[in-house]
Amino acid sequence: MILAADIGGTTCKLGILDSNLNIIKKWEIVTNKEDNGTHILKNIYDSFIKHLSDVNLNIKDCIGVGLGVPGPVDFNNGIINGAINLNWHGKIDIKAQFEALSGLPVYVDNDANVATLGEKFRGAGRNESDVVCVTLGTGVGGGIVSNHELIHGFNGAAGEFGHITVDTKQRFKCNCGKNGCLETVASATGVVNLAYHYYEELQFKTVIEDAIRNKELQAKMIFDAAKAGDEFSVYVIKKVAKHLAYAFSIISVMTNPKHIIIGGGVSKAGQFLVDHIEQYYKDLTFLPAYEGTKIVTAELGNDAGMIGAAGLIKIYILGEKI
Amino acid sequence: MILAADIGGTTCKLGILDSNLNIIKKWEIVTNKEDNGTHILKNIYDSFIKHLSDVNLNIKDCIGVGLGVPGPVDFNNGIINGAINLNWHGKIDIKAQFEALSGLPVYVDNDANVATLGEKFRGAGRNESDVVCVTLGTGVGGGIVSNHELIHGFNGAAGEFGHITVDTKQRFKCNCGKNGCLETVASATGVVNLAYHYYEELQFKTVIEDAIRNKELQAKMIFDAAKAGDEFSVYVIKKVAKHLAYAFSIISVMTNPKHIIIGGGVSKAGQFLVDHIEQYYKDLTFLPAYEGTKIVTAELGNDAGMIGAAGLIKIYILGEKI
Repeated sequence: MILAADIGGTTCKLGILDSNLNIIKKWEIVTNKEDNGTHILKNIYDSFIKHLSDVNLNIKDCIGVGLGVPGPVDFNNGIINGAINLNWHGKIDIKAQFEALSGLPVYVDNDANVATLGEKFRGAGRNESDVVCVTLGTGVGGGIVSNHELIHGFNGAAGEFGHITVDTKQRFKCNCGKNGCLETVASATGVVNLAYHYYEELQFKTVIEDAIRNKELQAKMIFDAAKAGDEFSVYVIKKVAKHLAYAFSIISVMTNPKHIIIGGGVSKAGQFLVDHIEQYYKDLTFLPAYEGTKIVTAELGNDAGMIGAAGLIKIYILGEKI
Repeated sequence: MILAADIGGTTCKLGILDSNLNIIKKWEIVTNKEDNGTHILKNIYDSFIKHLSDVNLNIKDCIGVGLGVPGPVDFNNGIINGAINLNWHGKIDIKAQFEALSGLPVYVDNDANVATLGEKFRGAGRNESDVVCVTLGTGVGGGIVSNHELIHGFNGAAGEFGHITVDTKQRFKCNCGKNGCLETVASATGVVNLAYHYYEELQFKTVIEDAIRNKELQAKMIFDAAKAGDEFSVYVIKKVAKHLAYAFSIISVMTNPKHIIIGGGVSKAGQFLVDHIEQYYKDLTFLPAYEGTKIVTAELGNDAGMIGAAGLIKIYILGEKI
């Protein structure tokens, strides 16, 4: 058995999986961020013990623990360098702490990487050696699987698609301090940025006019209006799609994945968004780098991170490549 | 012993190396492209046998053969899909052909990838797990080593840095059929493209004026003039450096290498070019993705490909990661 946790700022998604990454049991616990988040790991451990016993299993039946965390991870050492959403500050040796608690080998990676691994093993990327996942949520994250393994980079910063500079006009400031990052024009926030910007510039008539004026606009409203044929909203979505297509053209010449998987809240726009991206993607991309590549939406939803965290154990303890 | 060949359109660089990739003997033969290049592999094999005997070795002392070829390679199967410079057309099963000739296991990869591997094992990237090599020659090629292994992508098109779209004005047509690729503004041809373009636009006084008017300009002249302080040439080199810095910022957020190694003829401009790129690189790049990353020039020159081809045997037959 493998124990896995996707640790988030609100809840932790926990699971007991077999070595084929089938879920035996899954559940959630609330993340207790009090006292600088020092209770989080112990709470997860206690919850594992309780739920193992519910299915007549014991910690000794488990071969390892995979953890996904919302912050930058030094993968080789299992050390996280702060996680604002968990109230964790500075470097914390998660691997050592959880190994001491559980007596099991532990692997830790960041949430975007484990979600990518989940989709690779059991979701939209299954059976493929080379996939990339681009997570469009409040920000833009991502992960790269190449030849069945995650790419970390020497400093753990590989797959940071949100910070590809795509907006040559550099109109919006990114959380990273620079301007023009993909995140500023293709995250949920980014879609809204573009809508406000073009409404002011173009003064289109649109059904989302009230939300714009009241500064209450959300990405979902723009997608819904675009799907219903609202001309202004379609215009905005085309701009979003063009920026994503450019980023995907870069991803393709860099690591040439078979599937580019779109995850995160924005991906709920589904095939509508994919269709718009595809209109631009092939025109922008070097032929040998896009031939056979598919743009698809994620399949595992909120389970991706937990399944992928278990996948770390499959790769690094069982030494298996599916 | 390992046998290695870097097969080029003019010469083939051959070598006998030990399992630490020390060169025991190296030499070149002329590439005979007659009869659709059907003599090339046999000539290489015959030359190996002759030179092995010169150092009192036998083909039975060898554990494998690594080959670098100037064209797209299906790495898993060792099949090349055409190589114009060798007069090879269509799919050719190089691995099977050379295994039949030699009786040894053979690994084949494209020239940019083996050159990258050479620099990783014995050149500017030695001792590092994650490096990228960007080759600035007639075109722009490259290779990515991540966690000690080459990244190929599902279709063999990973590391095609030359086709990152960087020139938003898309002023020059690329050999690939699209416009605005890095190759159109940062290869030897690209540097010349920019010089002609800005000379016409800006009408600067410059010491390379005659070469421009006579359409005899070469990249080296522009670098030499820039180093000597020619204002127009410095202006052109700054533009080249800015495009390269943008590509390097993308490389950094994608695979986060420790070293970005510049190879190829243009890299002979050396630290002068690196200095100009660095002026822009940090401003453009996401902080966690460039912290600790160094831009350096290649060290192995023409030996890189041959050494890297031998490196394939080190990775895939000896199962070693340095």
